[in-house]
Amino acid sequence: MTSPTLVPLNATFKRLHNFGHLASIASWDQAAMMPAKGNEARAAAMAELQVLMHQTLTDPSLKALFAEAAAADLPDADKASLVEMQREWALVNRLPQDLVEAQSLAGARCEHAWRTQRKANDWQGFLGNFREVVKLARQEAKFLADATGTAPYEALMDKFEPGMSEGAITKLFGDVKTWLPDLITQVIAKQHSETVLQANGPFPVDKQRALGVEVMGLLGFDFEGGRLDISTHPFCGGVPQDVRITTRYNAATFAPSLMGIIHETGHARYEQRLPRDTLHLPVGRARSMGIHESQSLSFEMQLARNPAFLQLIAPLVKKHLGDQPAFDAANLARMITRVHRGFIRVDADELTYPAHVILRFEIERALIAGEIEAEDIPALWATKMHDYLGVDVAGNYENGCMQDIHWPMGMFGYFPSYTLGAMYAAQYFATIRKTHPDMDARIANGDLSPVMDWLDANIWSQASRWSTDALVTRATGEPLNAAHFRRHLEARYLGS
Amino acid sequence: MTSPTLVPLNATFKRLHNFGHLASIASWDQAAMMPAKGNEARAAAMAELQVLMHQTLTDPSLKALFAEAAAADLPDADKASLVEMQREWALVNRLPQDLVEAQSLAGARCEHAWRTQRKANDWQGFLGNFREVVKLARQEAKFLADATGTAPYEALMDKFEPGMSEGAITKLFGDVKTWLPDLITQVIAKQHSETVLQANGPFPVDKQRALGVEVMGLLGFDFEGGRLDISTHPFCGGVPQDVRITTRYNAATFAPSLMGIIHETGHARYEQRLPRDTLHLPVGRARSMGIHESQSLSFEMQLARNPAFLQLIAPLVKKHLGDQPAFDAANLARMITRVHRGFIRVDADELTYPAHVILRFEIERALIAGEIEAEDIPALWATKMHDYLGVDVAGNYENGCMQDIHWPMGMFGYFPSYTLGAMYAAQYFATIRKTHPDMDARIANGDLSPVMDWLDANIWSQASRWSTDALVTRATGEPLNAAHFRRHLEARYLGS
Repeated sequence: MTSPTLVPLNATFKRLHNFGHLASIASWDQAAMMPAKGNEARAAAMAELQVLMHQTLTDPSLKALFAEAAAADLPDADKASLVEMQREWALVNRLPQDLVEAQSLAGARCEHAWRTQRKANDWQGFLGNFREVVKLARQEAKFLADATGTAPYEALMDKFEPGMSEGAITKLFGDVKTWLPDLITQVIAKQHSETVLQANGPFPVDKQRALGVEVMGLLGFDFEGGRLDISTHPFCGGVPQDVRITTRYNAATFAPSLMGIIHETGHARYEQRLPRDTLHLPVGRARSMGIHESQSLSFEMQLARNPAFLQLIAPLVKKHLGDQPAFDAANLARMITRVHRGFIRVDADELTYPAHVILRFEIERALIAGEIEAEDIPALWATKMHDYLGVDVAGNYENGCMQDIHWPMGMFGYFPSYTLGAMYAAQYFATIRKTHPDMDARIANGDLSPVMDWLDANIWSQASRWSTDALVTRATGEPLNAAHFRRHLEARYLGS
Repeated sequence: MTSPTLVPLNATFKRLHNFGHLASIASWDQAAMMPAKGNEARAAAMAELQVLMHQTLTDPSLKALFAEAAAADLPDADKASLVEMQREWALVNRLPQDLVEAQSLAGARCEHAWRTQRKANDWQGFLGNFREVVKLARQEAKFLADATGTAPYEALMDKFEPGMSEGAITKLFGDVKTWLPDLITQVIAKQHSETVLQANGPFPVDKQRALGVEVMGLLGFDFEGGRLDISTHPFCGGVPQDVRITTRYNAATFAPSLMGIIHETGHARYEQRLPRDTLHLPVGRARSMGIHESQSLSFEMQLARNPAFLQLIAPLVKKHLGDQPAFDAANLARMITRVHRGFIRVDADELTYPAHVILRFEIERALIAGEIEAEDIPALWATKMHDYLGVDVAGNYENGCMQDIHWPMGMFGYFPSYTLGAMYAAQYFATIRKTHPDMDARIANGDLSPVMDWLDANIWSQASRWSTDALVTRATGEPLNAAHFRRHLEARYLGS
């Protein structure tokens, strides 16, 4: 039952939802199906749709509807729905249109040039475009911050992590910084004496796919409501009723694709299990980027790197890729928990990944706050890479501060979500383990219900009904706490 | 250079073109990719887009823009463009909205019930819904006819075959009727004594696909601007920059899929070769359904059933499906020109197909004109099947007058396009053969340029620049003439 006051707003958001459906499918198609010559026409069609969605959400009549709804006495569920509609509306309407257009242009120009500049290690060339991107992002942050009374960086981060304060994240990441660099050093020293058998390829793509599909089935992916395809950059797309995940295959190695499929399956199950009756409303969507990532990392890190799970799937790996000693469960576990200090975030392992994120968070926070300028980034990058990861990246922009697409596009405030997701996931599993001390034994026996039932009841079925903080507290008994993440990493990597 | 007067109209049609792009891709996806549970959300999203396109095309401001453009002194190319925009606009704006909605509802209800009624041979049940569909189609025809001063059936046919008069088509089909039934009898008698080796399967789907892809390449399909996939009902969809054709495979037999792929490749090449600079305007699209079908049938009938072409592809068939005597070119030719009298239009061969179409044309013309009622159809169907095809279908509605989806959906006036396409194609090839007496020898040697260059110059590159009549006359020196079709069939099937 929806309050009558919300009926016209709901109708608008249902329209947006329908347009969003088309945008999602067209965008999946672009990445997974479309041949090269379709690109220009597709870009024009998608831009037309974006304009339409923007017009719909900036229609002046919405203001009165929101005012009326705000004044009404609504039941709690409708209040929660209104909060999320209001949030989506405000995000679009708080910014002047000329700023949005300038950002879109500057971001497109900078990203386009970055694609060649990165390979050429051309930081100076990049800086020419990037300064404009930073300038406009600061303007955006100021507009949003003025409207909400928050710090500018927090206002940007709020697009991805509603309700997460800059203070809270600084404290969480500050905690991680106190123990992570030492832990990395200890783990690398410990692993130095371990023997890991390498798997002998090649591993034909069709066999890898069959393995991936079987593991997806084991994880509960609903193939009547989704697909697995191939794209250059793996993602989870489509719509909740029809979730499209992608991977990429390399015949020389099987683990990245398998782990990638498991990661995307985590995203997919969240979408596939969102309550069907509110999918057309913002309150019916996934809670935040960090919570979404907490699902993919619950699958990829908490579950799939757990020796009990590897015991379960080792026979499937052997069945599809052929039997060899490297595929024994214990060796598989050593193989996929191997820690390396490296330059590249997307290639990083579970343990070093947070260092890459914290470094970016600290730099982009200072950049948006105006404490540093774009030209200060390389020196800061080098210092932090040295301090957190013990790696010397001086002069290497390509694999240093130019490696990610986020900043060239003008996307600031997103990086924290990756590590927030890892921390949430660790906290979930600490909670599950408390009520299910036999969790590992059950996983090894193929019974994933302790994990899946908990995620379904506490996360998937809740959509955006609660704030992130309330969601996590209801689910685990406390707000996000970095201690669970630390205990998880120490247990897995030091066995302590 | 576009006249300034047309700029605002062009902008509207460009928007429609962008929405149409999304509709095409979503519709291809629905048929070729989408899992079952995506259906409801997809239907809602596509309906939303249809509403939007309808709103765009019925916006009251367009009336003044068309009036202004009509009064302007435009260059010929712009005049042609205006004619096509006006046509598209008028088709939508001539009908009252409540009639359009009533038709959509009645058609959906009738089609939905038809899916089970057909299998149950339940003509009486079908009639209950179908009477309403007919009633509304007659109303539609009257509205359109009153606005244009044509006969009601012609007004419906005009949606698919602009400019084709009821008189002209009655004359063309009347001509075919005078010789086709006898020709069928003669050919069947002649083929009675021929030996056709059947190919021994099974033919694995991946091998059939590889053969299809190689033949598509031979026919000039541009894989950087299109794809081949699978769907229950084969079609050519997508957008001109990215043409999506589909087929279906049956491991027991290879010819239907191969011929189907060649058919869709004909549609595809037309789209792929439409001039790029006017794709966003109605004048830049394919001329008509009949002309589109003339391309698929130029490929499937004129080219692919030509013994010279079979000589060219027989080695490819052997390469992909394995060598066997049935794959020799002469036997392949006999295999795919075998004539059977049958109940089902979509299974009909080249020679009997027109009889199925003419029968439907005669019945639907009389039905729309009010000369007969829905309940008269079965008796008429049985008489005409007997007269034109020598087949007794009495009492068999499932494989008689209930076999096609067109009428249940409320689509009247479409059937003629199939046979018009076959007749146009015969006329093109008569023309090509005149300037290229060596055409067959060149085809057998793999040189398809006499055909492809002619189609490109005369049809594909012309889009909707000319009326259908003018297009065909410019290309072949005369308007559509059934004599070419007759000569083609006699030459191929009687060798005379």
